[in-house]
Amino acid sequence: MSERVKYILDEEKIPKYWYNIESDLKEHTPEALDPETLKPAEISKLEMIFAKGCVEQEISRERYIEIPEPVREAYRLWRPSPLYRAVHLEKALDTPAKIYFKYEGVSPSGSHKTNSAIAQVFENKRCGIKKVATETGAGQWGTALAQACKMFGLESRVYMVRCSYEQKPYRRAMIELFGGTVIASPSTMTKAGLAILEKDPYCRGSLGIAISEAVEDVIRYNEDTRYCLGSVLNHVLLHQSIIGQEAMAQMEMAGDYPDIVIGACGGGSNFAGIAFPFLGEMLRGGRKVDLLGAEPAACPTLTAGKYAYDYGDVAKMTPLMKMYTLGSSFIPPAVHAGGLRYHGMAPQISNVMRQGLMRARTVEQLDVFKSAITFARSEGIIPAPESSHAIAAAIDEALECKKRGEKKTILFNLSGHGHVDMSAYIEYFAGNLANYDYSKEEVAMALSCLPIKD
Amino acid sequence: MSERVKYILDEEKIPKYWYNIESDLKEHTPEALDPETLKPAEISKLEMIFAKGCVEQEISRERYIEIPEPVREAYRLWRPSPLYRAVHLEKALDTPAKIYFKYEGVSPSGSHKTNSAIAQVFENKRCGIKKVATETGAGQWGTALAQACKMFGLESRVYMVRCSYEQKPYRRAMIELFGGTVIASPSTMTKAGLAILEKDPYCRGSLGIAISEAVEDVIRYNEDTRYCLGSVLNHVLLHQSIIGQEAMAQMEMAGDYPDIVIGACGGGSNFAGIAFPFLGEMLRGGRKVDLLGAEPAACPTLTAGKYAYDYGDVAKMTPLMKMYTLGSSFIPPAVHAGGLRYHGMAPQISNVMRQGLMRARTVEQLDVFKSAITFARSEGIIPAPESSHAIAAAIDEALECKKRGEKKTILFNLSGHGHVDMSAYIEYFAGNLANYDYSKEEVAMALSCLPIKD
Repeated sequence: MSERVKYILDEEKIPKYWYNIESDLKEHTPEALDPETLKPAEISKLEMIFAKGCVEQEISRERYIEIPEPVREAYRLWRPSPLYRAVHLEKALDTPAKIYFKYEGVSPSGSHKTNSAIAQVFENKRCGIKKVATETGAGQWGTALAQACKMFGLESRVYMVRCSYEQKPYRRAMIELFGGTVIASPSTMTKAGLAILEKDPYCRGSLGIAISEAVEDVIRYNEDTRYCLGSVLNHVLLHQSIIGQEAMAQMEMAGDYPDIVIGACGGGSNFAGIAFPFLGEMLRGGRKVDLLGAEPAACPTLTAGKYAYDYGDVAKMTPLMKMYTLGSSFIPPAVHAGGLRYHGMAPQISNVMRQGLMRARTVEQLDVFKSAITFARSEGIIPAPESSHAIAAAIDEALECKKRGEKKTILFNLSGHGHVDMSAYIEYFAGNLANYDYSKEEVAMALSCLPIKD
Repeated sequence: MSERVKYILDEEKIPKYWYNIESDLKEHTPEALDPETLKPAEISKLEMIFAKGCVEQEISRERYIEIPEPVREAYRLWRPSPLYRAVHLEKALDTPAKIYFKYEGVSPSGSHKTNSAIAQVFENKRCGIKKVATETGAGQWGTALAQACKMFGLESRVYMVRCSYEQKPYRRAMIELFGGTVIASPSTMTKAGLAILEKDPYCRGSLGIAISEAVEDVIRYNEDTRYCLGSVLNHVLLHQSIIGQEAMAQMEMAGDYPDIVIGACGGGSNFAGIAFPFLGEMLRGGRKVDLLGAEPAACPTLTAGKYAYDYGDVAKMTPLMKMYTLGSSFIPPAVHAGGLRYHGMAPQISNVMRQGLMRARTVEQLDVFKSAITFARSEGIIPAPESSHAIAAAIDEALECKKRGEKKTILFNLSGHGHVDMSAYIEYFAGNLANYDYSKEEVAMALSCLPIKD
């Protein structure tokens, strides 16, 4: 047979430590502010919302944080995830570039989200919490959290944006199959939900409303309930560092090292997961690597946003974070990559971008699906629309190599499969999809409402 | 960490030969009969329908048939597939038994079907065929064949039973994504389809009708088109032998050997895939193993069928095969495991059953879903309803071990994931599913029409 296509690590090679990018950044990521006082958020207040262990991880500047043994034990269900050399895609593109991808779709939820769900649920269990609440848009995070709760014996309540609840019955069923309680948001279970429904009984919901409901739920049942978030925050990015750490070991197996590392950017956790361990190596004097974040043209946070303090949600209940943002009141066009429709970007990624340590680009929706199909037909894996932003960027880089006759090594993160997103492909094949650009006027309007002026 | 949960073989360990059970059977499997003459089917006639290489494999009695290098190369996309020790399920059941499962859901189609699709498409390509036609019920086989055709540059036409075409848009989209042409059956493309539609313009179709249309398609475009079938036939079972061969190597890695090997039985290819290599070992004087086929109570071919010559399809166009059958005109109740709703059973499995070398049992539909959910919540994999018949049988065996205090080693084949079958879970959760037993009267009626009387 010709050269290998899969690089599989032994179970023993699941990383023993999460890697914390904060330790290697010269300029540290600005801390979160209390939304009421606009002063640095107090730990005791954060611990009302999040598990104590998660808050500790959130503010840590240690380089390595030990992965608790029960978390590593749970990771063994599917980790280490495979790294593939995309030989068939290379042939299809006729490129001199070498293309590798790390595949996170083998997890119970079908995406990288489970890496953090298990870590967060364990920290909740460790401090005696019995129930967690969260929101979910596209549904991957809700699935991941429900499955993690089932493993550790906690209850989960998932506020699912009503339009997803109705349009994605398969995702809802997966959450229920793993024992989670799914509540269509806005709901009548919270004051926030009731207030919305009073104004508009037919409201289809939004991520912002769902976050408000989940947080209200947590505050009401604070004795035994905490909140979990699937991206953006430092501790979530920390948990995802196992992706890049495994990928480094697998690239070593392949006798190779990436020139370019690519990830799709929504809240930022899958990009950071693959990119930060390589960035850390570079910051500590190791080999240089070109980090590329791919975001939807409909929601170009890193490429068209402003670096400023902003709320994490539409309802302005969360701490303020310094990040690239399109304004927390901006509602992106309804592209079929719900997981990337977020107005902000993880503060650590924003900080890295600000320091010129990575670059970013946008991908148009039709290119996303075209690339996804090219990839699926070559490699036999149907990718999620979110993950396909990374594929599109990788294909463009590989074609650029072809034009210039360069033999670069490209690595991208395939963060999830698209088995539950076939409705988006159906729309694409039916010719019902288009490229949607964001409205510059709407972003300007949203940015004019930022809580702290320059 | 505690003991391993995954056993992963290196790419180089993909078997180099398919294993042919016929070589080790003392009583050979009776040959197929021509439906017109009721005499042994002539090779030249079979080659009008199937690729020459497939016909050669169909009638071979060689023990090992070399896997062509391009097929092994294609297998590397996802093979060797993982073997898991189901430690979390064992804990949930509190059983002294050890439970292992081979997971075929990692393939491009999400099931074991791709193993044979790639082999069949390659044989078609090798003899100059440009297009293949097939039928699909549940959709796994259609997906597998379309993907294999895309890899080898052939065209595929998939006649999809109309009710699946309408109820399973995700499966249809997957086939199209991989470049296949999907035709709802009955269609206006064939005489067979037109005749049906003339009688009933709203006919929802059946596997029997779809087979008739695919075969008519092949006969009409015979110069460059051949037919492919996803189960039942000897050469399909041969291709699936890589499952059991890999599992043997993986059980060796685990330092273990199964006492019981379990597979779900529809047409029989996934059961034979895992069981026959172990059976061969036993027939050649090796260790004894208890082979158990699990079939739906709604379609109990092995447990309530008659061993007799019968047609493979409802329309009586295929060669006659000696097999356990409920009668080719029997239509099983509409349980949510479409891939197991087949009136007959692979002739080689029927022969093995007849000789007392395996046993079979039925599983009720509600037990299928109950077991599937227990498994998913323990192991983090959502199984296909078809595959869940094997899970139900494995759980029962493990509980029996608990009752008797026996430490048996159980191995089952998890033939596919259920990501595209979530609608069945939704029905289950909604309380809309029931146990469906077959009608003894209908089977007696169907059996009274067998073409050759005792």
